[in-house]
Amino acid sequence: MPDPSPASLHVHIQNPAGETLFPITRAQWDQAVARAGAAGQALTVSIADDDAGFSTAMARADLLITWTKEIKARFPHTAPRLKWVMATSAGLDRLAPFDMIPPPVRLLNNSGAHAVKAGEWGVMAVLMIANRIPTLTTAQREGRWQPIFTRSVAGRTVVVVGLGDLGGSIAANCSLLGMRVIGCSARGAPHPACERVVTSENLDTVLPGADVLVLAMPLTAATQGMITRGMLSLLPLHAGVVNIARGAVIDQDALCDMLEAGRLSGAVLDVFTPEPIPMGHRLWRTPNLVISPHVSSDDPDTYNPRTLDIFFRNLVAWRAGEAMPNEVDRTRGY
Amino acid sequence: MPDPSPASLHVHIQNPAGETLFPITRAQWDQAVARAGAAGQALTVSIADDDAGFSTAMARADLLITWTKEIKARFPHTAPRLKWVMATSAGLDRLAPFDMIPPPVRLLNNSGAHAVKAGEWGVMAVLMIANRIPTLTTAQREGRWQPIFTRSVAGRTVVVVGLGDLGGSIAANCSLLGMRVIGCSARGAPHPACERVVTSENLDTVLPGADVLVLAMPLTAATQGMITRGMLSLLPLHAGVVNIARGAVIDQDALCDMLEAGRLSGAVLDVFTPEPIPMGHRLWRTPNLVISPHVSSDDPDTYNPRTLDIFFRNLVAWRAGEAMPNEVDRTRGY
Repeated sequence: MPDPSPASLHVHIQNPAGETLFPITRAQWDQAVARAGAAGQALTVSIADDDAGFSTAMARADLLITWTKEIKARFPHTAPRLKWVMATSAGLDRLAPFDMIPPPVRLLNNSGAHAVKAGEWGVMAVLMIANRIPTLTTAQREGRWQPIFTRSVAGRTVVVVGLGDLGGSIAANCSLLGMRVIGCSARGAPHPACERVVTSENLDTVLPGADVLVLAMPLTAATQGMITRGMLSLLPLHAGVVNIARGAVIDQDALCDMLEAGRLSGAVLDVFTPEPIPMGHRLWRTPNLVISPHVSSDDPDTYNPRTLDIFFRNLVAWRAGEAMPNEVDRTRGY
Repeated sequence: MPDPSPASLHVHIQNPAGETLFPITRAQWDQAVARAGAAGQALTVSIADDDAGFSTAMARADLLITWTKEIKARFPHTAPRLKWVMATSAGLDRLAPFDMIPPPVRLLNNSGAHAVKAGEWGVMAVLMIANRIPTLTTAQREGRWQPIFTRSVAGRTVVVVGLGDLGGSIAANCSLLGMRVIGCSARGAPHPACERVVTSENLDTVLPGADVLVLAMPLTAATQGMITRGMLSLLPLHAGVVNIARGAVIDQDALCDMLEAGRLSGAVLDVFTPEPIPMGHRLWRTPNLVISPHVSSDDPDTYNPRTLDIFFRNLVAWRAGEAMPNEVDRTRGY
């Protein structure tokens, strides 16, 4: 590989060793460069999945694209030219408080890569709650024919907590089906798919009117354990819960208790505490629950192309001296 | 009850004895009359759920609204003034060849009452197939954490067989999510939600390109057993099957064999042979299958209001001497 000219940037991509589903390939990089037009010029790229490749690259890399778990395992590391690091996850909670990569190195997430897939999964999960699929699969497990007639979702209310990449897309799809969408976010800013948006402090005021509660917020110090037993108790009896955020945003044992007691109608969960769910864990025995093993948002066909397009969008902003749309605010945690 | 004047019509509503979820009430009738405006004038109504009430009403009723199973159990019956009978089901396959109510009495179905609910259930089932929920619930049943990453449905192909009330609404919702929808119907007439529509004879030509096959056709002599083992073998390995039609349209044992062998990725079924599924039936043990106990299309909040609105729509047409939109063609069977 030729030494980059002084005007060029060295981009390093570190794949996890043994990654078979989602490694970023040279062909994917070349295609993204072609899509990026002018932004793809004056770049040198290296791709590795081993320790030696990483160390060699860090001696000269300006920009790094890698997995959250790789950042966690490999940093702090000497990287004298490193300007910013893009993680391929939407939520970087596992890296907080981010001190393995101190400033001035900047840290970017991958928000935007998951919207289409997560939006589809989310509206599916909402429809599954409304159609009582968690209860029907519990009956099926026990060989019981148990007809339950349910109302249409059109006109019913879904409360979506977190209106980023994932939650915003779920809100939009629920709205397409004629649902009334109430959003909840840290600042309560308006959102085009939501009839209204409340701040986190006012979440309790909208829960009694919710038919479905969707959790799609980042895991931060502020959202850790945010959905307490008391919060869940504000939901009506027929309501259900969807979690596409992180297991730690909710009191999981309270949720299991309430599903067992019939105090909530059902849950469709993609995230858990811990993951993978250990053998014999109570979640495997909890009725009225559908378990999705953290697969809601990652489309193997489109994930890397979208990740690289997001990289180039941020590169353009950075070169122009503008704010990078995916830069993580280390204080708020996302 | 006063005798109806010569210009008025006597409408009788016969609810099944003991029906608790869906009996048509006097209040629902009165509200429908109010919505119907002029069409609700000059009508006398009687409502019963017993033998005596039925026999008394049949001596003078002009029009009858009742359940398919009631028609099957109570006719032939003397009913000298009866002009037409509206059944509250969309599919009247259980009454074919309809000889218990011979012409000139006309027979109407309830197509139109199920569109919203069935459309929501159908797009949910399509998303469940695409997200491999049938396989994930099988893994959950066995306490196995088995991540399977799946592609977005946007741009993928769903083949919808039957484009009536149910299939048309499912096609429209799939189209909203960016899916490519290919329809299939007896005559192959174009449909606004479908990229193209093939006739039943050409269904085999589109199955190899299907990601999901949705069955929503009426059960008739022509569709009985239409989805054979050979037809299912034309689907790609990753495809799945949704059935909201009737159990008898498909070779159910072939489907179970293929789900067990991993020859299809999954199925979400609302209808079966027989119903209810007996204890110990192989369906309860079939992997990669989600069982919904024939509850996809009946919304207890809206079913009767929509049924009565459809009744009045047909009444207006009949009084004007026009074709009634819900009249069953006894020869084709729907």
